Amino acid sequence: MTYHLKCVNCQKTYAPDPDRYTCDACGDLKGTLEVVYDYHRLHLKREDFSPYEGLFQFKDLLPVGSHTSIDEAMGGTPLLEFEGLLGLDRVLIKHDGVGFSSSFKDRASIMAVNKALELGYDTVYCASTGNAASSLALAAAHTPLKTVIFVPATIPKGKLTQLLVAGAQVLPIKTSYDEVFDISLKIGREKGWYCRNSAINPYLLEGKKTAAFEILVQNHYEVPDFVFVSVGDGTIVSALMKGFREFRDLGLVDKLPRVVGVQAEGAAAVKHVFERGEPFEPVAEKADTIADSISVGNPRDVVKACTFARALGGTFITVTDEEILKAITEMAATTGVFAEPAGATAYAGLKTMVQGGEVAPDQLACVVVTGNGLKDIDAVRSSTPVTFYEVDQVCQMMKGETT
Amino acid sequence: MTYHLKCVNCQKTYAPDPDRYTCDACGDLKGTLEVVYDYHRLHLKREDFSPYEGLFQFKDLLPVGSHTSIDEAMGGTPLLEFEGLLGLDRVLIKHDGVGFSSSFKDRASIMAVNKALELGYDTVYCASTGNAASSLALAAAHTPLKTVIFVPATIPKGKLTQLLVAGAQVLPIKTSYDEVFDISLKIGREKGWYCRNSAINPYLLEGKKTAAFEILVQNHYEVPDFVFVSVGDGTIVSALMKGFREFRDLGLVDKLPRVVGVQAEGAAAVKHVFERGEPFEPVAEKADTIADSISVGNPRDVVKACTFARALGGTFITVTDEEILKAITEMAATTGVFAEPAGATAYAGLKTMVQGGEVAPDQLACVVVTGNGLKDIDAVRSSTPVTFYEVDQVCQMMKGETT
Repeated sequence: MTYHLKCVNCQKTYAPDPDRYTCDACGDLKGTLEVVYDYHRLHLKREDFSPYEGLFQFKDLLPVGSHTSIDEAMGGTPLLEFEGLLGLDRVLIKHDGVGFSSSFKDRASIMAVNKALELGYDTVYCASTGNAASSLALAAAHTPLKTVIFVPATIPKGKLTQLLVAGAQVLPIKTSYDEVFDISLKIGREKGWYCRNSAINPYLLEGKKTAAFEILVQNHYEVPDFVFVSVGDGTIVSALMKGFREFRDLGLVDKLPRVVGVQAEGAAAVKHVFERGEPFEPVAEKADTIADSISVGNPRDVVKACTFARALGGTFITVTDEEILKAITEMAATTGVFAEPAGATAYAGLKTMVQGGEVAPDQLACVVVTGNGLKDIDAVRSSTPVTFYEVDQVCQMMKGETT
Repeated sequence: MTYHLKCVNCQKTYAPDPDRYTCDACGDLKGTLEVVYDYHRLHLKREDFSPYEGLFQFKDLLPVGSHTSIDEAMGGTPLLEFEGLLGLDRVLIKHDGVGFSSSFKDRASIMAVNKALELGYDTVYCASTGNAASSLALAAAHTPLKTVIFVPATIPKGKLTQLLVAGAQVLPIKTSYDEVFDISLKIGREKGWYCRNSAINPYLLEGKKTAAFEILVQNHYEVPDFVFVSVGDGTIVSALMKGFREFRDLGLVDKLPRVVGVQAEGAAAVKHVFERGEPFEPVAEKADTIADSISVGNPRDVVKACTFARALGGTFITVTDEEILKAITEMAATTGVFAEPAGATAYAGLKTMVQGGEVAPDQLACVVVTGNGLKDIDAVRSSTPVTFYEVDQVCQMMKGETT
């Protein structure tokens, strides 16, 4: 795993120095870096990988060598197959709501924690809508690292509770995620802490791309026609595209799936930038959606996401908050997978494209569920009314009822 | 997997008929049944099993043949190893808060759903403190089975939300779990539904015992000295003891761990029955603990739990609610594993025995975490105070602070 870093905007290359995060010439927003391995030295075979093992089975394509105890609790997440869902012959659900913090972000936090330890830092920080934060706090809990977390005060209670029990220094700030991000970067740099912020840290994406590897390995190297995933900052969608590309470039599969980044209608900055075309320019829009994890107006990895999508056949669509909410209960009731709003956004995206005739019944679609529904139960409260009964009422009611 | 059923109290054997739940002679409470396989026909080798695979790798020791899509989302849960925890050389944590419903109960619900389908039922029901219910509802969601759920009205919100999104018929009743159980049994029998009630259904334990198999396989067949698990009805603790016994009887390991069932001080009926000695008689006590999953006064599997513990070297201890609450944050902050109260109860039990000198530093203890902390965040609210900040406050505060 020898590698260097390359600016996604100007292609300039950098050595992976301890304090190297982004491109000097292009800046934090345009100049995010990609980790480039010496691919020609790698001779990986399909038999090298197992459907069930953790993410360190892909160590030749990861930027860290060591790992810690909790890392075993992420990776090898289930790839579930359902027949007839949404009228399709087969639908795959990659259920990433089952890691140690119950979100996809565990894949990235594992990279950040191991990198911080490797580089000798004593403190790691991050700005997050919630999942990255709770993931980092739990990933670092059993290490000597101190964790400082910047989140919007609107963070769902489940995610906040994870942060608090993990013993992190938690700073919930009464402003948007976008401003929280800027504040964290300013303070983190002044303090000289290790940064686990989306897009800024090039190694996070490397952890996240392992989900793409797993989808291919678990599906016996049959490449899905479509992969749906929700998009906030743009790092996860970029990571999936990079993962599929790496396995194709290494000859492990012979084509790419079409990756569809699904955004909430009220927070669709990445889609807007993609549609405006090259050169891709970062934007700052207003963000408003019930899907807190993707409520991002100033996406930090927009240039990478759009550049990768342009090169690798990806695209971006939107769904409404109403469709997201409906997707949560519909997916749970038809598959048993209970996702948080951002997790169900991907399913809503698939449904939209099926209804629009863009996904045919015999095409294989994979929905990536990025977070567990338990992380934000308030989101579905209104769509799940409940009645509480007295003992007599139940007995009376059931007597009359026939099922 | 030819098998018959045997009463744990009078040893009478029964054929596994579709409507056979408990022993006719001993009744529901004393006459719970054990599934007995033709062990002499089984020639299992260590190499037959993998540390990461799902629970159907143990199909020769399971009472169902088929399985459904969601089943892939349980089993092969992480066995984490921590050095130095609580002053012990090594501690294992079996993290079962990561299944499709984020609790250990998924192992049992998989059995119930497949059995109900196999036997041609159209409805499956259960009484539950919450985890068994949410697990059953999600396990059955994508099958043709209708699900009817009886729970106490005090069910934590996370578990209730899982039930509602899964589309189950949910009956939260304003009374104790113990009465809810009796009501469900009465109605379920009248209706002729399939019963997924703890202890009553002999097949549930078979799913649960796979956690014991996994602990042995994942720990490379090194048998822990102690295994700690929380106890409510007594089925999980019985299941672990049976699992360890089966692997020993089949020659896969040469000894048994000492299984320690940990109860809350306010709901310690199993411990009381065990201490009173044989013949073990069911009791009905008052139950009062913050650990909702084990708030059981009239434990349904007490005879089995005590009988197995007597035969296999198991024991029962108690911890206080205060110790349970403290265990949640202590375990999360030192390991990264966030458990619900009943899940942390096992850790509190280990701590108690370490402090009492009953577990030596070089002895290997395994803590079984039976549920995810996200299932009941209100339980830790009071022990995790939080301050929300204005933008200026944070910047000001961090300026002065040195870390």
